[in-house]
Amino acid sequence: MKLRLGMIGGGQGAFIGAVHRIASRIDDEYELVCGALSSDAEKAKASGIALGLDPTRVYSSWKELIEKEKQLPEDVRVQVISIVTPNHVHFEPTKAALEAGFNVILDKPMTFSLAEAKELEKIVKASGKRFCLTHTYTGYPMVKEAKQFVAAGKLGKIRKVYVEYPQGWLSTFLEGEDNKQASWRTDPGKSGIAGAIGDIGTHAFNLAEYISGLHVSKLCADINIVVEGRKLDDDGAALLKFNNGASGVLMASQIAAGDENNIKVRVYGEKGGLEWQQDEANTLLIKWLDKPAEIWRTGGGYLSSFASHNTRVPAGHPEGYLEAFGNLYRNFALTIKADLAGKTPEKEWLDYPGIEEGVRGMAFVENMIASGKSDKKWLDFEI
Amino acid sequence: MKLRLGMIGGGQGAFIGAVHRIASRIDDEYELVCGALSSDAEKAKASGIALGLDPTRVYSSWKELIEKEKQLPEDVRVQVISIVTPNHVHFEPTKAALEAGFNVILDKPMTFSLAEAKELEKIVKASGKRFCLTHTYTGYPMVKEAKQFVAAGKLGKIRKVYVEYPQGWLSTFLEGEDNKQASWRTDPGKSGIAGAIGDIGTHAFNLAEYISGLHVSKLCADINIVVEGRKLDDDGAALLKFNNGASGVLMASQIAAGDENNIKVRVYGEKGGLEWQQDEANTLLIKWLDKPAEIWRTGGGYLSSFASHNTRVPAGHPEGYLEAFGNLYRNFALTIKADLAGKTPEKEWLDYPGIEEGVRGMAFVENMIASGKSDKKWLDFEI
Amino acid sequence: MKLRLGMIGGGQGAFIGAVHRIASRIDDEYELVCGALSSDAEKAKASGIALGLDPTRVYSSWKELIEKEKQLPEDVRVQVISIVTPNHVHFEPTKAALEAGFNVILDKPMTFSLAEAKELEKIVKASGKRFCLTHTYTGYPMVKEAKQFVAAGKLGKIRKVYVEYPQGWLSTFLEGEDNKQASWRTDPGKSGIAGAIGDIGTHAFNLAEYISGLHVSKLCADINIVVEGRKLDDDGAALLKFNNGASGVLMASQIAAGDENNIKVRVYGEKGGLEWQQDEANTLLIKWLDKPAEIWRTGGGYLSSFASHNTRVPAGHPEGYLEAFGNLYRNFALTIKADLAGKTPEKEWLDYPGIEEGVRGMAFVENMIASGKSDKKWLDFEI
Amino acid sequence: MKLRLGMIGGGQGAFIGAVHRIASRIDDEYELVCGALSSDAEKAKASGIALGLDPTRVYSSWKELIEKEKQLPEDVRVQVISIVTPNHVHFEPTKAALEAGFNVILDKPMTFSLAEAKELEKIVKASGKRFCLTHTYTGYPMVKEAKQFVAAGKLGKIRKVYVEYPQGWLSTFLEGEDNKQASWRTDPGKSGIAGAIGDIGTHAFNLAEYISGLHVSKLCADINIVVEGRKLDDDGAALLKFNNGASGVLMASQIAAGDENNIKVRVYGEKGGLEWQQDEANTLLIKWLDKPAEIWRTGGGYLSSFASHNTRVPAGHPEGYLEAFGNLYRNFALTIKADLAGKTPEKEWLDYPGIEEGVRGMAFVENMIASGKSDKKWLDFEI
Repeated sequence: MKLRLGMIGGGQGAFIGAVHRIASRIDDEYELVCGALSSDAEKAKASGIALGLDPTRVYSSWKELIEKEKQLPEDVRVQVISIVTPNHVHFEPTKAALEAGFNVILDKPMTFSLAEAKELEKIVKASGKRFCLTHTYTGYPMVKEAKQFVAAGKLGKIRKVYVEYPQGWLSTFLEGEDNKQASWRTDPGKSGIAGAIGDIGTHAFNLAEYISGLHVSKLCADINIVVEGRKLDDDGAALLKFNNGASGVLMASQIAAGDENNIKVRVYGEKGGLEWQQDEANTLLIKWLDKPAEIWRTGGGYLSSFASHNTRVPAGHPEGYLEAFGNLYRNFALTIKADLAGKTPEKEWLDYPGIEEGVRGMAFVENMIASGKSDKKWLDFEI
Repeated sequence: MKLRLGMIGGGQGAFIGAVHRIASRIDDEYELVCGALSSDAEKAKASGIALGLDPTRVYSSWKELIEKEKQLPEDVRVQVISIVTPNHVHFEPTKAALEAGFNVILDKPMTFSLAEAKELEKIVKASGKRFCLTHTYTGYPMVKEAKQFVAAGKLGKIRKVYVEYPQGWLSTFLEGEDNKQASWRTDPGKSGIAGAIGDIGTHAFNLAEYISGLHVSKLCADINIVVEGRKLDDDGAALLKFNNGASGVLMASQIAAGDENNIKVRVYGEKGGLEWQQDEANTLLIKWLDKPAEIWRTGGGYLSSFASHNTRVPAGHPEGYLEAFGNLYRNFALTIKADLAGKTPEKEWLDYPGIEEGVRGMAFVENMIASGKSDKKWLDFEI
Repeated sequence: MKLRLGMIGGGQGAFIGAVHRIASRIDDEYELVCGALSSDAEKAKASGIALGLDPTRVYSSWKELIEKEKQLPEDVRVQVISIVTPNHVHFEPTKAALEAGFNVILDKPMTFSLAEAKELEKIVKASGKRFCLTHTYTGYPMVKEAKQFVAAGKLGKIRKVYVEYPQGWLSTFLEGEDNKQASWRTDPGKSGIAGAIGDIGTHAFNLAEYISGLHVSKLCADINIVVEGRKLDDDGAALLKFNNGASGVLMASQIAAGDENNIKVRVYGEKGGLEWQQDEANTLLIKWLDKPAEIWRTGGGYLSSFASHNTRVPAGHPEGYLEAFGNLYRNFALTIKADLAGKTPEKEWLDYPGIEEGVRGMAFVENMIASGKSDKKWLDFEI
Repeated sequence: MKLRLGMIGGGQGAFIGAVHRIASRIDDEYELVCGALSSDAEKAKASGIALGLDPTRVYSSWKELIEKEKQLPEDVRVQVISIVTPNHVHFEPTKAALEAGFNVILDKPMTFSLAEAKELEKIVKASGKRFCLTHTYTGYPMVKEAKQFVAAGKLGKIRKVYVEYPQGWLSTFLEGEDNKQASWRTDPGKSGIAGAIGDIGTHAFNLAEYISGLHVSKLCADINIVVEGRKLDDDGAALLKFNNGASGVLMASQIAAGDENNIKVRVYGEKGGLEWQQDEANTLLIKWLDKPAEIWRTGGGYLSSFASHNTRVPAGHPEGYLEAFGNLYRNFALTIKADLAGKTPEKEWLDYPGIEEGVRGMAFVENMIASGKSDKKWLDFEI
């Protein structure tokens, strides 16, 4: 049985919509049954037809999608809606979808503002529906292994976290060149108050909290607009304090010329450290104070159930970004199917990012921007 | 419009069948409509049901599948059949499928023997249908880039080729432990005359010929059974001569303890060299005599159409083994759809391995085993 | 003709003294003729004898060394004095040596305090003698290439600098275990006001300024004592602003459990970025916005005179830490020999760290510690 | 007390002579006291003066050096003679030096022919003097660790060895361009019957036997002259059989365009494998069948006495080629000093390559060339 999936946003010319669709197909847990794929009604239609959707379920707006689908018979109507629009069109459709009784997968950052995020938290909880926020990197099996490793206390108390996300693609004024990806990401009306901090900083922040099991409690940020004419930050960094007393450093830049998407995290405890980076996604490096470092690899027989559950092929056949994304979709589906079957989902299935991560991510964005403007050194991480 | 896909083999407990199915889904070009998923009728049924197939199109044998599908209306019946059985069940179903008018995707090595391979070549040509052999590694975008780089003469005349495929998983007598993957691969009745040479040696051989654009013309092989009690080779190496006078070395081992699947190829010409390995699949290293080496990366704007056509996400978001496999499926589908539309397929679509590669692969197997037994140094590469 | 070298500090049990001596020997530009190798007179004697020094020139204190050597004939007496004592014994012997007419090589950080550093700057200038501060990493040929690359404008205007020095060796309370290296480095009476920041933070700071050609103008630091009972910082990080408007991040830690000495720097400009790290010391990675990254290698025929002058063996035969250290000694010797010969030293020879770097390094230490204690976000970099 | 060192060959323009001299200085165990640095008497003189040698001990021929030094008082005359001439001037001066009572350090390959090598073996044994052959790579601490690891049985019985030495510097007809290094190496009158096989193949062969603790018993070689006009092989490969039944592959090429000097060895046993390469000289990778691979590092507290004895600086400060070379010199010196003191040298000191390795190396050269010409597949490894 496949879950019936609908999509809001992600029409022709979009990047992340296609990624969501591939992710939904990899493990065959979903069937795409409807869509409102663009805010432009014409484009929405054309995109839906191109995807082979039933024309009667290709909608010209997200409102229409929710309204019409709600009226379909229970065994026909959509079960999960993926929302892959720019940030300013996250809250309303998510709210409407949840309130109409649909489960939601939402692209990050979760909302346009922290206020929206907190409001959405209430809505999710009231709805009784499942909600997934696509912090892709937490879908990598070795990221999951890292979290389990720390949680099991193998590194001792955590003392230091370094996390970085250096990109170079916004090194020039790309928004002046009719580049769709660049345009909305640098537009305060669509992205919100942050650019790089919202787009990739939230990923770095989420990865650091996910693996360390800690929460940032204070931060001190340097926020920069480097490229002339740009309206939102394209670079930032922060000193961090965590709730256990550990400290950290976060770096996120879109003007790191020549860099691709090598998000990297290092976590150090009393007994050792660990290191993971997307460029070597199938490797988790474990370092010790007094013995050789170890190379933990996807597919290894020694891995936890969290890693092995999220792996499809033998060690040495690399899985990548799309499979990590697919793991979010798969675990969300397994959870919902368990719900539908009246069973308790396995803990490995429930290990996908949700509303709490979304609220913290939006708090991160607002605290970072506030700190960037403040003369005060440490700001409490306020939610 | 999706192509209607059927599958022979690949039922519960199989490894490569699941990989084929994922590959077929990634780009949404296929719909799995029927299957004869096991030689065990019970298991075939159960597997088909588990996959959500229409029960009337879950068959208990490949013969039944072909016979029954042939009788279905043209717009219902299967269009492409994937055959993912052990080697001894390659030739017959492929022959039957082609002769029934179906396109075929076949797992490698192509057949049980070279004689079968040559016979199959005639059948493919006579059938007028499309045939794809899943030499996965040629699906990687940077492998395609490497081929184009050499073909464009950028390295000058090719002089030396090193190719290797070191695995360690058969370092112990795994076939004695009820391991399905190990059992058939080490069984002469199912694998044919070769073990490692057929299973992974053919991949190495294919990769070397694909990238270099050359053909092996002579070889001198060392073939070993290392693990006591094993019936087929688990290790081998060969000195190679190519048709342009270049020389080479091929290594394939399943007793390289601790190694995973890091197939690697290096090609050297008069002006420079190139290097690709699966562990860094999104990188192609280009080395020059007198200037800095270059790191060519999947997603780079400077890549050929062959690489960019086979890439889904931006540079730095790694694509892996499943996407490489998916590229074979996608290009095969695009080609067949062009056929169906009466159009000429693009050259990038036709760049998937086919019958010629299959014949050469089986010739490689037989020449290697013959050389392993011979006291003569160089054997001509006979087909 | 070899220069006559003397050494203050570096007796039995010391680490860095032995490194200095090897560095002085590699290129055969020096002959060790005298020493006051320990503050313990007995140990100083024993160490000098063990090194095969003329017993009449093994001194029991640095004061004695300077006083006695000064009285020797000009063609016999020491010409260059290496001072490799803990920080609190840097200023006095350096001052005395310079005023006695000797050239000085001094280990970093330069002095116990910034006040001493500024005083020493005057003394150096007044003395007319040469002064070298052993910021080892600037001796690596690919670090020199990086500096030249930036200086030639190949990256365009510099926008971002990341520099890090993660070590793990002080993850435990090693100073409680009779460890000589740990003891003085964590003792405010010997190290000064800083621990990790002085010991390795200064290296990171120097490397960032050396390669970027920029000066830090503001900073905001997080300074931590992580290991219980420790008296000085063992971890720190800072947000940086440079004099051209660029920003940066500096990380230095001695509690990064499992890390060795992989100091790493990344510099990004408008057109591209570069990356160097000690673990791959013979490689300089050059990254571009729109073409493949390049691997520049020690020994490459395409390198600048600054890199090739500091390389001894062909590409691929790695040179390391001792050769980088040796480059400081060699260039200092070539400079002094030119002085003695009344010639102008080549620009490649003069490219060793000196008094200006030392003053900035001590200002870095004091500004970092001040910032660590401050509630104000940005402190001006004051000297 | 330093040993008195003399040098034959290695004058101005030579590469390896300078390397030997640096190696001799690093650990301060030698003092260069005399030399016959060129076969050209003028050049020999000029080179000796440039090195600062006592003019009375700068000789115009190796014969003069040995004759005159023999007549000097025992506490003045040379104790160790380094012979760094091209291959055709190895045997005679080594013989003369040994028979005159001097210890000898000789560059590889040991002699011009196997016959000379076997003759030299007798002379060494008869002389009672110490003899070192500079197979540099065995001086790396992690190579020594690898040998100890295998010898301790940690990998179980060895089954497979891959060793390779790919260089690209002779990709063009460099000997036609007045290149001193290229000229003698490609001249049968100076190199002997082999080019690449003698120059770098012997290193690969020695490394494989050293680490595995095995002896090659059969081989099958492909020997090529790739560059037009060249007189000796510039490329070769061989299938190997070892005396314990293991098999192997050896590759050595000087036309691997773009490659530097990344000699690499992989050894596989029943329980795991190991891997070392010069490009990551301070790392030994240990791979296991069923647990994470381990990164063993120079300077690690867990290493054997053989590795730690040959390391000078803490982990993470890379040591390289010159230090590896220096380890040969140092261990040879420690051994001779023990001899002089009437003590038994430590086993770590005696771990330098000697006459047996030299004889096997020359047998390797002759067997390889013979195999290259033979139609027979396997040739016994004859000495």
